[in-house]
Amino acid sequence: MKQDELVRFGVSMEGTLLDAFDELNTVKGYANRSEAIRDLIRDQLITETVQDADAIVVGILFYVYDHHIRELESNLTGFQHNFYHSIISSTHIHLDHDHCLELTIIKDRAGKIQEMAEHILSMKGVRYGKLMLTSVDALHE
Amino acid sequence: MKQDELVRFGVSMEGTLLDAFDELNTVKGYANRSEAIRDLIRDQLITETVQDADAIVVGILFYVYDHHIRELESNLTGFQHNFYHSIISSTHIHLDHDHCLELTIIKDRAGKIQEMAEHILSMKGVRYGKLMLTSVDALHE
Amino acid sequence: MKQDELVRFGVSMEGTLLDAFDELNTVKGYANRSEAIRDLIRDQLITETVQDADAIVVGILFYVYDHHIRELESNLTGFQHNFYHSIISSTHIHLDHDHCLELTIIKDRAGKIQEMAEHILSMKGVRYGKLMLTSVDALHE
Amino acid sequence: MKQDELVRFGVSMEGTLLDAFDELNTVKGYANRSEAIRDLIRDQLITETVQDADAIVVGILFYVYDHHIRELESNLTGFQHNFYHSIISSTHIHLDHDHCLELTIIKDRAGKIQEMAEHILSMKGVRYGKLMLTSVDALHE
Repeated sequence: MKQDELVRFGVSMEGTLLDAFDELNTVKGYANRSEAIRDLIRDQLITETVQDADAIVVGILFYVYDHHIRELESNLTGFQHNFYHSIISSTHIHLDHDHCLELTIIKDRAGKIQEMAEHILSMKGVRYGKLMLTSVDALHE
Repeated sequence: MKQDELVRFGVSMEGTLLDAFDELNTVKGYANRSEAIRDLIRDQLITETVQDADAIVVGILFYVYDHHIRELESNLTGFQHNFYHSIISSTHIHLDHDHCLELTIIKDRAGKIQEMAEHILSMKGVRYGKLMLTSVDALHE
Repeated sequence: MKQDELVRFGVSMEGTLLDAFDELNTVKGYANRSEAIRDLIRDQLITETVQDADAIVVGILFYVYDHHIRELESNLTGFQHNFYHSIISSTHIHLDHDHCLELTIIKDRAGKIQEMAEHILSMKGVRYGKLMLTSVDALHE
Repeated sequence: MKQDELVRFGVSMEGTLLDAFDELNTVKGYANRSEAIRDLIRDQLITETVQDADAIVVGILFYVYDHHIRELESNLTGFQHNFYHSIISSTHIHLDHDHCLELTIIKDRAGKIQEMAEHILSMKGVRYGKLMLTSVDALHE
């Protein structure tokens, strides 16, 4: 892989479209157009990739749960152990007197991560959570 | 406004990123990179614009309802009449024996369209629906 | 199908959660909790259904295009003719001097509608557009 | 607040809708309907809450960056230091030879977290990332 080999090409655009794009990039803090366009493209590629259930992706799963619920923590730990090959890291935060936030990074097939997330988010006492996916391969592109 | 005045500028990118972008564009059927990049940029600008409750936008609201529900149709018509200045067009489809799909195009402030959609979607007998927004101004950019 | 046969069952919930739900429903204009809960459930079911590429669904595709672009309209019409079995209706709006909004209702497999939408949205001169999908079967549930 | 005080109320629904809901809940692994309905409601409440720029929320920001980019790491650290009051925790993962994933948990006003995320995601060398928001208060409901 030679990611650092930059290619240069021309893009044509209505002047008014370019002005609006430049303005938005200034607000967002982009240093130049190429950087902003690369981000738009990567975003699109990663969105496409993670829709493939068989693609190897990285999942960032967070969920908030009530730690007073009996046996929830041991169930969560027990369930996660079945995936110990895939779980890279877990971070635990005490949000307030009742709630913990757990943040888990998982590397596996997109479909398997989805399933795992669904199972955890449906447990009694798990109040809320979301899964985000990113592709490692698409980052090299 | 002179939308047709094209500006040309250079973009630099890792070769692997460009290859992946080209491949996706072939699948999607884009004739050239500039067209695909313009669409990514317009998409981003319109997404930003329609988040402003005060922006004048065009709303495309569809909802499916059960026409057997008593007084629903007259309630829907009555409610829409309050917005007759804003409603550009309505299309009505008989989906099956029970359900009608109504598709309404509205031009107004984003916030007002949101409110109107929420009201309709919460009516008894309205089974499902969604609102999409687009900006007319951002199209000129 | 006997959609009108209502079943009644009990739901238990923290009082504070119920209060917040009631408050939101008042804002949105829901007449009662059952109606609001049914809508949440239908929304979830339809979201699941339309992710299946083989499910027969209804697509609502809107796109905005510049009618000055040479041959775009005949290309659009030509392309849509290949799908004339699936296209239920089209509505056309003159947004401003340059732009038309076209709203097409399509009934077909989710995957085929996605493909058709992608093709249209990538055409030169088609500035912006989105596809929404709804399931007819899930409406009967 | 007495979250544990459960309230019980009746919900009426078409039998076919309830069947479809039960079936989906079995797939997802929900133990009972009340739990699944509570999760739907909480999801909706949190989605509403985090749209308010002034609401105090918890943000989960992940981003992937190329650690070979000169001064990126010190820029990221420097920028995050301005928010040290708000940042609860950061987790760092070496994804592969080139890329690091950083996962940051932030507690602040929704608008301020959005701004911070936008700034980081627009930095040169930050390849991809997303922000998710959750409300702590809505969890108590």
